[in-house]
Amino acid sequence: MKVLYFEQKITLKDDYPQPKSGEALVRVRLAGICGTDLEMIRGYMDYTGVLGHEFVGVVEKSNNYDLVGKRVVGEINAGCGRCTYCSSGLERHCPQRTVLGIYKRDGAFAQYLSLPEKNLHTIPDSISDEEAVFIEPLAAAFEIEEQIRIQENQKIAIVGDGRLAQLIVRVLKIKNKNITCFGRHQNKLHMLQKMQIAAKMGISKDDEHTFDVVVEATGNESGFSDAIKLAKPRGTIILKSTLASKGNLDFAPAIINEITMVGSRCGPFRPAIEALASGVVKVNDMVSAVYPIEEFEKAFEEAKKPTNIKILLRP
Amino acid sequence: MKVLYFEQKITLKDDYPQPKSGEALVRVRLAGICGTDLEMIRGYMDYTGVLGHEFVGVVEKSNNYDLVGKRVVGEINAGCGRCTYCSSGLERHCPQRTVLGIYKRDGAFAQYLSLPEKNLHTIPDSISDEEAVFIEPLAAAFEIEEQIRIQENQKIAIVGDGRLAQLIVRVLKIKNKNITCFGRHQNKLHMLQKMQIAAKMGISKDDEHTFDVVVEATGNESGFSDAIKLAKPRGTIILKSTLASKGNLDFAPAIINEITMVGSRCGPFRPAIEALASGVVKVNDMVSAVYPIEEFEKAFEEAKKPTNIKILLRP
Ligand SMILES: [Zn+2]
Ligand SMILES: [Zn+2]
Ligand SMILES: [Zn+2]
Ligand SMILES: [Zn+2]
Repeated sequence: MKVLYFEQKITLKDDYPQPKSGEALVRVRLAGICGTDLEMIRGYMDYTGVLGHEFVGVVEKSNNYDLVGKRVVGEINAGCGRCTYCSSGLERHCPQRTVLGIYKRDGAFAQYLSLPEKNLHTIPDSISDEEAVFIEPLAAAFEIEEQIRIQENQKIAIVGDGRLAQLIVRVLKIKNKNITCFGRHQNKLHMLQKMQIAAKMGISKDDEHTFDVVVEATGNESGFSDAIKLAKPRGTIILKSTLASKGNLDFAPAIINEITMVGSRCGPFRPAIEALASGVVKVNDMVSAVYPIEEFEKAFEEAKKPTNIKILLRP
Repeated sequence: MKVLYFEQKITLKDDYPQPKSGEALVRVRLAGICGTDLEMIRGYMDYTGVLGHEFVGVVEKSNNYDLVGKRVVGEINAGCGRCTYCSSGLERHCPQRTVLGIYKRDGAFAQYLSLPEKNLHTIPDSISDEEAVFIEPLAAAFEIEEQIRIQENQKIAIVGDGRLAQLIVRVLKIKNKNITCFGRHQNKLHMLQKMQIAAKMGISKDDEHTFDVVVEATGNESGFSDAIKLAKPRGTIILKSTLASKGNLDFAPAIINEITMVGSRCGPFRPAIEALASGVVKVNDMVSAVYPIEEFEKAFEEAKKPTNIKILLRP
């Protein structure tokens, strides 16, 4: 079967996953390219194997007969099942974990993948495949509210206007009407404005140090200093993009202003599935193009373009 | 009168403060040299004026007659008195504030200084001058518990063994018995061990990712990455030293492990005064030497030596 194998560069290979005990074999119907994939291709992580971690598929083989034939999405962190993190439902922090398409586990840019059965969530028919591939990154957006409590009257800034920023806005706007997005691309800011979100090109003097909560979701190195510029003294910054966290940073101002900075990664699937099923969150406008897996080179090209939002692969 | 004036370098000058309305004139009896002063001398901040912000003195002139003749210490941030921060008791975050010996306000390495009367705290006779100069940095240590709640059973790591780290240990050990200090200097680690604190030279593999709360108080650039190494997934890092927050940092691991990082600066004076008055916190072993203000060159030399803890100046 076809897989996109990464070893310094991506090649289309023939390979097949071997599900272990407790794991299901899933036929992938659609997979999404995210910023982490692009980082990995640039060599920012030390990974060799099949790429991809955002997917929707159908269970082909499983010892859990309830799952067989069901359409599923999957949590990407597979824990050891025994440590204190695993036993408190935080497999995503298990020190022994493997991570789909990211760490020691072949990923979703493939016709088939395997994952522990407990990682899989069946999804209702009301969610299309094109929506379901967003569940994994949408869960990451829901993680913010797992970590901090945002008061209704608090001012929120989102730094960034790309894939992740777009999803975060859609999630936070459920409870909060006071959101401003700081981006760089007219077309993406326009998408946000259509949702009645204040969306601005660049930060003006009046914006500085006026936000209670700032979410850094740029994927570029200036995101962090922009976030510090926007946060109020004693405010909170949610750090969503790992790329923005490298290089020559100065967070002396964050100490002087006693900012709380919260690293935030993968999140809970349940609220993400429910939000799409109920229509509270809509993502249909975010698919820029779908490519067959053979056209991966073109697909990754397009995923890098700032004018595009989400590029999907059909294995 | 004699002052230590900083303009690229320190000189002993003759100058006199002019108290404004609402301000008291204080004769300085003793002042402490801290890491911030050393940073400022290295040109890390853009300040010209009299240095020094840790002091104990006697009020010479004030419209508040209750204060005149009293021995006092003083909060270093002087707010505008009108903004939302000032009106909620957070003058230390007022955007219009001046800061004693740090920002737009002449400091305590002088025979006299002026501060708003509301910044002053009288101190009981049971606290000696040599102890009272520690109230300002001790308040900064108490700030940690203003910002986060530390559970009794949580494991705490302190990175650093210098002036600030020593005070933080003394404060946190009031409520928590599970503290490990990671330092670099045998004599300072020994001081901690005498207080029954686990004190180690360097981080071993077994220490990594095992602490619920890590306090970065090194004043050097490796402090931040050491703190990230020590913190558990979902743990908390308190950032105390601004110097450790510059340069080529990588906090991708902090995002992956969903660490909460809390910038922490000046703190509440009341608990610091009470802790010294009651003897719950002892600082007597921390004074390395006292110099007359004229010998400032020697004093700053000594303050830079890692073998010394606190160097005091007598104006
Ligand atoms: Zn992703
Ligand atoms: Zn585990
Ligand atoms: Zn200080
Ligand atoms: Zn103010």
